[in-house]
Amino acid sequence: MIITLRKGAKQKEITAVTEKVKGLGYKPHVSKGEDITIIGMIGDSAEKYKEVFEAMDVVEHVNEIQKPYKLASREFKRENTVIKVSRNVDIGGKKIHVMAGPCAIESRDLLNDTGKIVKEAGGTILRGGAFKPRSSPYAFQGLGEEGLKYMEEAGEKLHMPTISEAMTVDQVELLSKYCDIIQIGARNMQNYDLLKAAGKQKKPVLLKRGMAATVKELLLSAEYILSQGNYDVILCERGIRTFEDSTRFTMDLNAVPVLKKFTHLPVVLDPSHGIGIREHVGTMAKASIAVGADGIIIEVHPRPEEALSDGPQSLLPEQFRNLMKELDLVAKAVGRELLD
Amino acid sequence: MIITLRKGAKQKEITAVTEKVKGLGYKPHVSKGEDITIIGMIGDSAEKYKEVFEAMDVVEHVNEIQKPYKLASREFKRENTVIKVSRNVDIGGKKIHVMAGPCAIESRDLLNDTGKIVKEAGGTILRGGAFKPRSSPYAFQGLGEEGLKYMEEAGEKLHMPTISEAMTVDQVELLSKYCDIIQIGARNMQNYDLLKAAGKQKKPVLLKRGMAATVKELLLSAEYILSQGNYDVILCERGIRTFEDSTRFTMDLNAVPVLKKFTHLPVVLDPSHGIGIREHVGTMAKASIAVGADGIIIEVHPRPEEALSDGPQSLLPEQFRNLMKELDLVAKAVGRELLD
Amino acid sequence: MIITLRKGAKQKEITAVTEKVKGLGYKPHVSKGEDITIIGMIGDSAEKYKEVFEAMDVVEHVNEIQKPYKLASREFKRENTVIKVSRNVDIGGKKIHVMAGPCAIESRDLLNDTGKIVKEAGGTILRGGAFKPRSSPYAFQGLGEEGLKYMEEAGEKLHMPTISEAMTVDQVELLSKYCDIIQIGARNMQNYDLLKAAGKQKKPVLLKRGMAATVKELLLSAEYILSQGNYDVILCERGIRTFEDSTRFTMDLNAVPVLKKFTHLPVVLDPSHGIGIREHVGTMAKASIAVGADGIIIEVHPRPEEALSDGPQSLLPEQFRNLMKELDLVAKAVGRELLD
Amino acid sequence: MIITLRKGAKQKEITAVTEKVKGLGYKPHVSKGEDITIIGMIGDSAEKYKEVFEAMDVVEHVNEIQKPYKLASREFKRENTVIKVSRNVDIGGKKIHVMAGPCAIESRDLLNDTGKIVKEAGGTILRGGAFKPRSSPYAFQGLGEEGLKYMEEAGEKLHMPTISEAMTVDQVELLSKYCDIIQIGARNMQNYDLLKAAGKQKKPVLLKRGMAATVKELLLSAEYILSQGNYDVILCERGIRTFEDSTRFTMDLNAVPVLKKFTHLPVVLDPSHGIGIREHVGTMAKASIAVGADGIIIEVHPRPEEALSDGPQSLLPEQFRNLMKELDLVAKAVGRELLD
Repeated sequence: MIITLRKGAKQKEITAVTEKVKGLGYKPHVSKGEDITIIGMIGDSAEKYKEVFEAMDVVEHVNEIQKPYKLASREFKRENTVIKVSRNVDIGGKKIHVMAGPCAIESRDLLNDTGKIVKEAGGTILRGGAFKPRSSPYAFQGLGEEGLKYMEEAGEKLHMPTISEAMTVDQVELLSKYCDIIQIGARNMQNYDLLKAAGKQKKPVLLKRGMAATVKELLLSAEYILSQGNYDVILCERGIRTFEDSTRFTMDLNAVPVLKKFTHLPVVLDPSHGIGIREHVGTMAKASIAVGADGIIIEVHPRPEEALSDGPQSLLPEQFRNLMKELDLVAKAVGRELLD
Repeated sequence: MIITLRKGAKQKEITAVTEKVKGLGYKPHVSKGEDITIIGMIGDSAEKYKEVFEAMDVVEHVNEIQKPYKLASREFKRENTVIKVSRNVDIGGKKIHVMAGPCAIESRDLLNDTGKIVKEAGGTILRGGAFKPRSSPYAFQGLGEEGLKYMEEAGEKLHMPTISEAMTVDQVELLSKYCDIIQIGARNMQNYDLLKAAGKQKKPVLLKRGMAATVKELLLSAEYILSQGNYDVILCERGIRTFEDSTRFTMDLNAVPVLKKFTHLPVVLDPSHGIGIREHVGTMAKASIAVGADGIIIEVHPRPEEALSDGPQSLLPEQFRNLMKELDLVAKAVGRELLD
Repeated sequence: MIITLRKGAKQKEITAVTEKVKGLGYKPHVSKGEDITIIGMIGDSAEKYKEVFEAMDVVEHVNEIQKPYKLASREFKRENTVIKVSRNVDIGGKKIHVMAGPCAIESRDLLNDTGKIVKEAGGTILRGGAFKPRSSPYAFQGLGEEGLKYMEEAGEKLHMPTISEAMTVDQVELLSKYCDIIQIGARNMQNYDLLKAAGKQKKPVLLKRGMAATVKELLLSAEYILSQGNYDVILCERGIRTFEDSTRFTMDLNAVPVLKKFTHLPVVLDPSHGIGIREHVGTMAKASIAVGADGIIIEVHPRPEEALSDGPQSLLPEQFRNLMKELDLVAKAVGRELLD
Repeated sequence: MIITLRKGAKQKEITAVTEKVKGLGYKPHVSKGEDITIIGMIGDSAEKYKEVFEAMDVVEHVNEIQKPYKLASREFKRENTVIKVSRNVDIGGKKIHVMAGPCAIESRDLLNDTGKIVKEAGGTILRGGAFKPRSSPYAFQGLGEEGLKYMEEAGEKLHMPTISEAMTVDQVELLSKYCDIIQIGARNMQNYDLLKAAGKQKKPVLLKRGMAATVKELLLSAEYILSQGNYDVILCERGIRTFEDSTRFTMDLNAVPVLKKFTHLPVVLDPSHGIGIREHVGTMAKASIAVGADGIIIEVHPRPEEALSDGPQSLLPEQFRNLMKELDLVAKAVGRELLD
């Protein structure tokens, strides 16, 4: 951490800062220029005292030098984390996983039909929402536990691990019973109670980046889960908010190499929500593979115009089957595997 | 809702759309241009079928015409809502309320000391956090219920209503016992379970806008609370995320006149978090009054450099006292009241 | 400037950096933590070598400590700059100036009529565009030099200084002949040739912030003008691009106190473009005064529905007259003057 | 164009709107709901009257239905435009072109050395700046015409077309003499005079998207060039401004499929500026190919730490050679060609 003092700071004020640094158990490194003085405070967890110094009147600015997260950092663990899900699915290794299914579990039949399509096309994880975060209170909110039962059943039948979203602490418990991966959505990325609950159970967690969250904040949220003892966290980029209005969100592919550098955790992309326009989902999925994704999430629906949510971005079965073949080619081109 | 069809749509496709409109109980209004056809579907709640049409291949684009929220809208209720809090405090009328106090309740003494300063300077509502949303799991997380007891005690002693933040459904219950206003923070603006819980109890709710939430989404989140039967919702702008990095956030004052037009609910501003730099909080508070705020939230701390959170943006007692006099002048200039 | 090295940098690599610092004529200040080393390079203009160090593989990050602009900085000149325009108008002092008029000079009559309305209501500077930057090549582009002649004439007749926008170097020359203040628009904030041309003539320049420009970049663009010898630069905030779509732009009032701290130059706001919705322009104007503006720009049009550009945000004469009285009250409340 | 009227509009007001529509030569299509009336005005160039209606008090909102650009639109020209540059280079066909070279032409030797590296690795167009847009007036501004002469010479020697940036109308003329493609930078995307000058000469123009420009605005700027008679416009995405600060910009790959749908013009990506961090440029280049780029721009520098600009994002020769092979694999995977 680098503490820059205001121009013309007096010796007495400089000493006040260095004494405070010492009081916290660190060694101050003072560098004096002609009219600017900076003080280095370097060491384990120094960054957590940032606000203490920012609140001092003589301090102009504090720059973080070390990362404020620890367990999630590449410094803490050098090799990529490979997460064992179930049914021999590992996320974070050479194989890229496609998690696909309907946005919402609308009925047992829909889920089974879609699951079969996904499986046959080469998808390896079945997705579907039982609890839906909807911006309007008047929109369809999901089938709840009933949906989760269909999910478990479909997973059994198709021999596929399943993923679904939890929005409350209670739902985390339910999901850890019925599903193989628990998703925490973008709107809940900083719902700290939920993060802690997800960290206290054993199932892998897929954590989506908030629409206005920086890469650093995503990693801090992951740290919440890791710090509770659950090391199986998958990060997911699903589009951020920008001024551009010709797409639903701006999927931030730049975040992938940055995350890969900062953390050992696997990174997955969600082009369906990321761009939010069906005819462009496939193109963004290809770019996601090329940029280094360990997996992608795709919404598939046999009859999108009857979908109760996210119809506009769901792929038709035929589109999905063709896309899988195209994705496989891109995966091979970047030294990964997708179809067997 | 206006449905624009792709160029060159065939009569069969146009009919498919108009039949669907009729099937949902609306009357289609077809306008045919030389190569573009648009279909109007106007009426109560038509907008909730937006995705149904977006999912049709012949549809190019759907424009919402009516607002997707109802109870929160100015159309539903023309006069400003005035919320009765307690101890004769009404929010939404001529009087502008200043809610002030420490960011976190760090100790009983701190709260009492600060409360006294606030009260004497003319503040009318005491704020302080017992549960703190912190981006790092390693930062101070608040005193919890103990803090709420101090809060209740301080409110009694000073005859001031109190406000504090709830991050979970359980905390909503606790807070509705100890405090007068329940705050829902920016990070939880779309935590729908929390919104519903807040809507099911009786205390007024202050709902903060998410850092990436549009004005429309803020109103949809308010609608969640209203739709549960609690009509006492105060909206709060506290800064959005933009590219600008010389301030902590960009407080969006533009949202105030827009909200005042769209909704009957009171609007409060939080310049402390909004700009996030102590020396500029006062200036932004003045602008907040001028732009039409029904109240403002200010962090005050007798010893900011010892604060366990948000020290850099807390005002010193002396600064707060002077500011209150300045705010009163601006309030009068725009036909409102602040100090008695 | 603070140079942070990658974890585990070897002594040889550290030396390479310190030698480079010395080679550029600065003294390196090395601070070594357990696994992180930082090197301070403090002194005049050190920041301009930032990229040299960023390009070194051993360097993790470079933080700027000193401001990259000089003549524009508060450090360079402590007192507020007061710019003498003409006809006894000074910008940057106690008096707040309202620059008003039609968006475009559409005809001699329109300009004279509007100018009279502006003058009578208390506006002190007449604005109007002769050259219009239009995003579509098919939109009305302005009357050109003919419009400037009307402008000069109206200024004479009404005894008011005038302001108009230049988009090219040639137009700068024309404008410096006909007008009293030369405006450089948001789209040209980083048109460096234009900035230099404006810096080489004598008339005051009003420089608008680009829609995606940081406060720092605005000051760097001002520095371009100042560095050519023209010290009479007025900065203008006119709205930035954000995700919010209920307003045309997000006028960034937060920038005003920040600019006032960083620079001695006067700051003006443009609520007409900033929020872009006529019925909210007045409210934003009041907030602009409260936040510390030295002036505001307002579009007025006697018949907005016939305006050839920006009709939706122009005020009607009656609205403008009432607004001026309201602004005067706010100005007095913050210790400034507006009407005589 | 769809004109939505305010709730409760009276018949007289509705008639005023329909009469205005008729007066402009269009047929109004009125759709009346229970309390909302909308009026369709569909036909060639109707959108250019948008502001006329927005300025009417009875109008609540105007939605554009048709695109405001014409020559640039896919509707105007269905097949992809393939631009013949020189020396048998075609942009917009099956072959993906890599434009590479130093950020700035720092010396004849540097340009020749880098050009040779580029050519040998499979790059097909030589880039280098003679005029540099720099945010600080104190930074290196380029060699000017001297640099262009080196450029022409290097192009001759290596048999490669060349590209360089023009910032003024005069530079457009110079560049059209010395270079094969004229680049217009992000900061000048709405410098309309420059766009017109580029449209009046014959060389192909590469137009970069502004950092805060929407896809629609990029196409409107392209329209400026096309409307002057030069149909050879290459669009370029180079990163937009967002809140994320771990990358220099956020390269918006989502814009590529959207542009490909809206326009027939070729699209090129600039990962060097887009992400702005050397070690991630290669990854973003692969994603650029996968997302459908017709070309990419890469900065290469034999000694980046000596570069006078953009050193931090320039690739080393060895990195560039390896990258080209990787890009070729991705190109093949998506059905394109890169290396011969």
